[in-house]
Amino acid sequence: MSDAATPPADRLARLDLQRRQRLGMVEAVWGEHKSPQQIAEVITGLRRAGELALVTRVSTDKEAAVRTCLAAANQDITVEALLHPWTYEPCARLLMVGPPPPIPAGSARVGVLCAGSSDLPVALEAQLCLRAHGMATELIADVGVAGLHRLLAQLERLQEFAVLIVCAGMEGALPTVVAGLVPQPVIGVPVAVGYGVSAGGRTALEGMLASCAPGLCVVNIDNGYGAGMAALRLLNGRPGQKA
Amino acid sequence: MSDAATPPADRLARLDLQRRQRLGMVEAVWGEHKSPQQIAEVITGLRRAGELALVTRVSTDKEAAVRTCLAAANQDITVEALLHPWTYEPCARLLMVGPPPPIPAGSARVGVLCAGSSDLPVALEAQLCLRAHGMATELIADVGVAGLHRLLAQLERLQEFAVLIVCAGMEGALPTVVAGLVPQPVIGVPVAVGYGVSAGGRTALEGMLASCAPGLCVVNIDNGYGAGMAALRLLNGRPGQKA
Amino acid sequence: MSDAATPPADRLARLDLQRRQRLGMVEAVWGEHKSPQQIAEVITGLRRAGELALVTRVSTDKEAAVRTCLAAANQDITVEALLHPWTYEPCARLLMVGPPPPIPAGSARVGVLCAGSSDLPVALEAQLCLRAHGMATELIADVGVAGLHRLLAQLERLQEFAVLIVCAGMEGALPTVVAGLVPQPVIGVPVAVGYGVSAGGRTALEGMLASCAPGLCVVNIDNGYGAGMAALRLLNGRPGQKA
Amino acid sequence: MSDAATPPADRLARLDLQRRQRLGMVEAVWGEHKSPQQIAEVITGLRRAGELALVTRVSTDKEAAVRTCLAAANQDITVEALLHPWTYEPCARLLMVGPPPPIPAGSARVGVLCAGSSDLPVALEAQLCLRAHGMATELIADVGVAGLHRLLAQLERLQEFAVLIVCAGMEGALPTVVAGLVPQPVIGVPVAVGYGVSAGGRTALEGMLASCAPGLCVVNIDNGYGAGMAALRLLNGRPGQKA
Amino acid sequence: MSDAATPPADRLARLDLQRRQRLGMVEAVWGEHKSPQQIAEVITGLRRAGELALVTRVSTDKEAAVRTCLAAANQDITVEALLHPWTYEPCARLLMVGPPPPIPAGSARVGVLCAGSSDLPVALEAQLCLRAHGMATELIADVGVAGLHRLLAQLERLQEFAVLIVCAGMEGALPTVVAGLVPQPVIGVPVAVGYGVSAGGRTALEGMLASCAPGLCVVNIDNGYGAGMAALRLLNGRPGQKA
Amino acid sequence: MSDAATPPADRLARLDLQRRQRLGMVEAVWGEHKSPQQIAEVITGLRRAGELALVTRVSTDKEAAVRTCLAAANQDITVEALLHPWTYEPCARLLMVGPPPPIPAGSARVGVLCAGSSDLPVALEAQLCLRAHGMATELIADVGVAGLHRLLAQLERLQEFAVLIVCAGMEGALPTVVAGLVPQPVIGVPVAVGYGVSAGGRTALEGMLASCAPGLCVVNIDNGYGAGMAALRLLNGRPGQKA
Amino acid sequence: MSDAATPPADRLARLDLQRRQRLGMVEAVWGEHKSPQQIAEVITGLRRAGELALVTRVSTDKEAAVRTCLAAANQDITVEALLHPWTYEPCARLLMVGPPPPIPAGSARVGVLCAGSSDLPVALEAQLCLRAHGMATELIADVGVAGLHRLLAQLERLQEFAVLIVCAGMEGALPTVVAGLVPQPVIGVPVAVGYGVSAGGRTALEGMLASCAPGLCVVNIDNGYGAGMAALRLLNGRPGQKA
Amino acid sequence: MSDAATPPADRLARLDLQRRQRLGMVEAVWGEHKSPQQIAEVITGLRRAGELALVTRVSTDKEAAVRTCLAAANQDITVEALLHPWTYEPCARLLMVGPPPPIPAGSARVGVLCAGSSDLPVALEAQLCLRAHGMATELIADVGVAGLHRLLAQLERLQEFAVLIVCAGMEGALPTVVAGLVPQPVIGVPVAVGYGVSAGGRTALEGMLASCAPGLCVVNIDNGYGAGMAALRLLNGRPGQKA
Repeated sequence: MSDAATPPADRLARLDLQRRQRLGMVEAVWGEHKSPQQIAEVITGLRRAGELALVTRVSTDKEAAVRTCLAAANQDITVEALLHPWTYEPCARLLMVGPPPPIPAGSARVGVLCAGSSDLPVALEAQLCLRAHGMATELIADVGVAGLHRLLAQLERLQEFAVLIVCAGMEGALPTVVAGLVPQPVIGVPVAVGYGVSAGGRTALEGMLASCAPGLCVVNIDNGYGAGMAALRLLNGRPGQKA
Repeated sequence: MSDAATPPADRLARLDLQRRQRLGMVEAVWGEHKSPQQIAEVITGLRRAGELALVTRVSTDKEAAVRTCLAAANQDITVEALLHPWTYEPCARLLMVGPPPPIPAGSARVGVLCAGSSDLPVALEAQLCLRAHGMATELIADVGVAGLHRLLAQLERLQEFAVLIVCAGMEGALPTVVAGLVPQPVIGVPVAVGYGVSAGGRTALEGMLASCAPGLCVVNIDNGYGAGMAALRLLNGRPGQKA
Repeated sequence: MSDAATPPADRLARLDLQRRQRLGMVEAVWGEHKSPQQIAEVITGLRRAGELALVTRVSTDKEAAVRTCLAAANQDITVEALLHPWTYEPCARLLMVGPPPPIPAGSARVGVLCAGSSDLPVALEAQLCLRAHGMATELIADVGVAGLHRLLAQLERLQEFAVLIVCAGMEGALPTVVAGLVPQPVIGVPVAVGYGVSAGGRTALEGMLASCAPGLCVVNIDNGYGAGMAALRLLNGRPGQKA
Repeated sequence: MSDAATPPADRLARLDLQRRQRLGMVEAVWGEHKSPQQIAEVITGLRRAGELALVTRVSTDKEAAVRTCLAAANQDITVEALLHPWTYEPCARLLMVGPPPPIPAGSARVGVLCAGSSDLPVALEAQLCLRAHGMATELIADVGVAGLHRLLAQLERLQEFAVLIVCAGMEGALPTVVAGLVPQPVIGVPVAVGYGVSAGGRTALEGMLASCAPGLCVVNIDNGYGAGMAALRLLNGRPGQKA
Repeated sequence: MSDAATPPADRLARLDLQRRQRLGMVEAVWGEHKSPQQIAEVITGLRRAGELALVTRVSTDKEAAVRTCLAAANQDITVEALLHPWTYEPCARLLMVGPPPPIPAGSARVGVLCAGSSDLPVALEAQLCLRAHGMATELIADVGVAGLHRLLAQLERLQEFAVLIVCAGMEGALPTVVAGLVPQPVIGVPVAVGYGVSAGGRTALEGMLASCAPGLCVVNIDNGYGAGMAALRLLNGRPGQKA
Repeated sequence: MSDAATPPADRLARLDLQRRQRLGMVEAVWGEHKSPQQIAEVITGLRRAGELALVTRVSTDKEAAVRTCLAAANQDITVEALLHPWTYEPCARLLMVGPPPPIPAGSARVGVLCAGSSDLPVALEAQLCLRAHGMATELIADVGVAGLHRLLAQLERLQEFAVLIVCAGMEGALPTVVAGLVPQPVIGVPVAVGYGVSAGGRTALEGMLASCAPGLCVVNIDNGYGAGMAALRLLNGRPGQKA
Repeated sequence: MSDAATPPADRLARLDLQRRQRLGMVEAVWGEHKSPQQIAEVITGLRRAGELALVTRVSTDKEAAVRTCLAAANQDITVEALLHPWTYEPCARLLMVGPPPPIPAGSARVGVLCAGSSDLPVALEAQLCLRAHGMATELIADVGVAGLHRLLAQLERLQEFAVLIVCAGMEGALPTVVAGLVPQPVIGVPVAVGYGVSAGGRTALEGMLASCAPGLCVVNIDNGYGAGMAALRLLNGRPGQKA
Repeated sequence: MSDAATPPADRLARLDLQRRQRLGMVEAVWGEHKSPQQIAEVITGLRRAGELALVTRVSTDKEAAVRTCLAAANQDITVEALLHPWTYEPCARLLMVGPPPPIPAGSARVGVLCAGSSDLPVALEAQLCLRAHGMATELIADVGVAGLHRLLAQLERLQEFAVLIVCAGMEGALPTVVAGLVPQPVIGVPVAVGYGVSAGGRTALEGMLASCAPGLCVVNIDNGYGAGMAALRLLNGRPGQKA
């Protein structure tokens, strides 16, 4: 059926290599719906163009398959060098290939909070995506509102961050409480952790959107990457980061 | 069409006069879908049977119309006496006819909290329905989580109640925070206050059901009456109230 | 990427060991999103702190894996002793490690009803979580409203419980019928059993919230643990249980 | 714009006058979205064709306006005769013009139950639509499941009906309980009465569809007319009615 | 934990053996959430009580496991005899154990239609559940409205059935079209076949409930059993079937 | 607060006067959320630019208010001339100011069907929006599927249209049936007519999207304008219309 | 149970072989819910009737199983010939058996756009279904609106197509932007690619239906086949294609 | 009923006067559910405490009633002085009493975009709430994506803002397109403008959350105030604004 078939080349991902220049970001690749072969090709393409390769939602199995694909391509030494360092964080299902930029001394830091340990994958995704852009982050885990003393004990520390990313599943009340306590930008990330009415993260999402705390911003459920990029937009405008 | 028509008498509300004996409660009448004439008849019926008449969701206009109906019925002195005291609380849209039982000295008290002043109608409905059964309540208003210090300042006082009814709209986080702080039974009442995703009270409801605080119970949106009756079921089993 | 990585220790669950003192409850661990390794660590931590370890939503496979993790840790005799008794109930997917407190003679009892045998896992979770706090319970199974005689035959027995936990899937009518028959506190637990419109338990949940029976309280779908803790809050305030 | 405009005649309702012959029913007119003028025209059309005119969802104001339209048409005596008897039931918002067929002696009867007095409008719509086809019905009001004794007291009477139409709002449990008690066909009609999760009748509808009672059939929310016609389909096949 | 554990005997299904006498139906067992062991026990219990055993939603694998359980129980010859005939229909996932009653000559028949071949499992479930009660049925497959001529060609045949059960997925328009063509009772069964907006059967369900055809009744999605029992209720009242 | 206020001029609608050149359409104005004053200004602006002014969703009252605004502006004769002809169709709530282009002889015609007379406003909106672009249309009303003979009687006529716009509320089955009968492009327009599950038009919309008929296209609920513009896109590419 | 069982022959798919003559389309077979055996039978049936066999939603495994079924049937040479060419496109999960009609020189072409490479399966389904009817298509991939320059660079090329099929997941904004840029018919196809609020394709679907661009048509989520057939209906009316 | 009634004083709003010190914001009052009398009291309270009074969602009628209340209170000259300047913006339904802080020369500015003129009320609310905190804003109206040239023409201007607030109803695509073009923080505000699937603003909200553009933040539907406060949190951390 050659007269109708789309040539394979036309199906290749069209890399948005102008993104760094336009938005100050690398083009992250959403790995969930891509085959290992497709991911291997995108990594090679990005690395050849001198870009860091950042791939989200890569399961442990798929990461192994991507390595196999790349090895099988029998690549020369030059390409092999481009694949280092190879950083894979299984909990966040995130793959980063190539060296991230150094973090400037004295940089503003992003605080990443999570309500329970089930929120860790999303928090780590946010942290690593910021790290890939040379930003410093710090994790404050297990400060859910059912045991409020744990959060209140961190109050002074929270004041020191330039931005706060707050991840929570279930009823998602943590970002509301945080945004009522501190004046910084707070980005709420609903997490798809829960069962019954909270399964899938909808309840956490809507709880954050409906928040009675003023000026809380929200991203999509489980969108650690998006929260990281929102924080990056904020920090990029600050002296010391961008200049 | 007399051969098919339902005789008006058959359409009359069938009063559940055994309810007090079976459940320890008066039969409250849901006034929203009833005409003033129907409400007037139900009040007369209940009062004649020696029961307190408790009618929820009666607007200011409808309350006036009910009075007119009752006056127009040209009732004798005996009936008129049954209509006192006539207590109407416009904010809660609640009508109580007849004398509520006295509150025994030293009774357990129910704490009724609300996050903002828009939650007052629901909180008052709960208070008055408990009052109609001889129970003592206390209101703690405007302790929403966006200004947490207001709630924490009341912590010691909260410990003294036998049960807590906690009303909140928007994201509905208040009952979660309360249930994480104190050991008593906590009944969450979502309130249909908000806009966008929180319009109608769904977000508050689901936030309470999804709560990370252990053992929080929930009733329907705006159901101050139901929260009151749930508290009554709890208190009825306690020495000093029921014995 | 050592400069950015979160040290593994920071990712550990922060145990809320003050919960018993604050709320009169042990901190139950939600096992669904945790790895066997994480669960093994939490169990050890709780037992070392002298707490009972209660883990919900542990599948049969995961329970075996937790045992393997604990064995592999080559623990000394002192730790091994802490892991007894080891109680795992596969139908409820619940794991309890350590000895639950004794049930005081003559304690108030919680009646746990379920509409059909598919509701058993949730009912058992409620029973075991109460058992872990020294509370007595009794199961009354298969009393669904499609064969009403089965429930009515138990009416006298129902009157004897201090609290009733009523589990139902499908249309979830059982708690409504029960709350219309008896004066005690009734906690409805919707169960995710059904298909079509009742798949996932939403219909049962909303049916319970919309109940025409006064004072019915509700918890999240499949939340046997929450229903148990709500019952515990009620019983803790009663003389003879807490004193 | 005469070249494009649709001639008014083309906009007239195309009456389905074959319906009685095809389905054994008159064509009922849904009055909600029609103007008084349109309704007046349809009534005249149906009456001239020798059909009974049955118009649902006609508010009290609209009924008055329809009368005015018909009077204004300065109709001759022949037409005026066709408009008798004029039967309007405000609670059901139903208008019937012309004489319904007589009810044969000893006909099977349809029992119409409703849970509370707020369900009356829907129950009456069902009754009157059956009456318009010469069918006998009987109303049993206020037998909601929160006071089960009221329903159980009617059990023997229920056995005598050929079909049961059961209307309920809130959690809609009544049809489930009825279908578990008697062997006849049961048609559940959810009613849009309630607030919070039950507002709009969705919860009652889904509760009936999810019913654990075998063989319960359901129609759309508030669809008293549809329930009546479903009962008519059943009865039409019975000897004594149709023959 | 013997003091708290529910004795296994208490967890057994409580059979509703009065159902045939009360409702004229056997108690069908919903097999989806039951273990093979539980199903084997229920079958034995029902057969010993002289009842036909009807189990819905039994996958091919589970049916084999049930057989194994029964064989392993080393049952004597008397029990073995009770397990014949053993009828399993894999497409409908339905298991019937024991002899169904004979179909009386000249019985009224139920027509079972389906829009496409993906609706067959549901149609067969309806047919077999009726067969288990001695009722005659006939299948008319693949008469979806996208090729209307296929349905119109069957019009005369449709007129001969006492009741019509009409199964359809996707937009679910078939029952509407059928109910507009014939006067008999029509029971619509939405089928969970489709993708996008029609995945899960919601669209078919709501399309049937919203039908413009008068008197169409509906059951839950995929509820072939319920449709069969609704038809049975109808037929039971007819002379020749029940007498 | 002059330093912050947005100058009124900045709030004026920015007309997309390039739309005709880019898309071959006039810019229709959505009148629902605009004040009479705003609409009057937009009409004047469009007419001065030589464009036809097409305003959708203008109630009868608002149309009168727009006239008053324009009269009050004390406009000279030149402007007054631009306001002719003034065409207002109350049923469609559509206002067209200025002369529409003539319809070329022998043009392709668009057939506009509606299931019931309640769908007329949407059908007329589609017709008039096409008329405003010089396209010929024809209305075929009241051909709903509950009385299929009415549609089948029009089958030959349907074959003659270049495109079919099919409007339906309730279950929305009509476009499915039509698209199964004829080969032309069919655009389904769900109409917000109905109650219970069909209120708001969702059921009709999803029924059309889920259609088993191949190649049915859909627009938003009540979007007669959009259906008209979709038809226009189709016709514009045909010889005889555009050339 | 031979007296009740449906004979297997009655369960066979009833092919709609008049579809080509009525609608100008082959009957495509929805493979998702069919067994390999059923698919093999349908293919043979269609090929014997001289039709192209087009089967959608066939997974790689199922395609292999279909081949096995056909081989096992030990078919003679005549049948074997009918099975060529055998075209299977795994990404689109589409199977076409038999020779598609040639594409006439100078035919109008359909442009198929997709926002990201995850939308490719749906785009390819649309392309191949058009190819099966002798229509020419062209794929323009990876032109999502987050990097608008990629789309704007194709603007001139877009103008050349007779119809545009635009596939997008996530927020689904691409068809809106395209329909605002070019005057041709635009068919939006929402794709079930995304997570959180966009999982399942609902958000993309509703975004397209709500589009502010005039005249955008929409089909069901992932319905590449339907988009292709809608385009076919458009093209069939054009000179040069159909004549 | 004096023993139970809540003293009116307890129902008064508890002002969160620490908010400015804690969060750098005044406490805005949500006027929708408050009576004119309540609003008058809150304004007086805030002004006496030296705070600016900012009340959102005040209709034109309510604003007049608030003035009347304040006049009726027969306040002395000191209070009257506190009520100046009185700024009411009817389109935004926003009331500001007292002098806002001056805008420092050379301040960072917030760009407020809206897709259509129906989004103006929300955009103005954001602008005025920022103005109340001494922040400079600029409005760019009517740059919806259906006429993309209008937005692209403003691209250079967009680059100059510190933050962008982007309001859109319908499909809500504008913030996605903007966030793909510029590197600054972008806050999307969904607007409840539309009909059918877009009524209520849900589609716009979910489209923004699902955005394919990286780092787009979202607030609740119609929440201009929240978007303003989110921007304020961002700007407060910048040199030149806060120092």
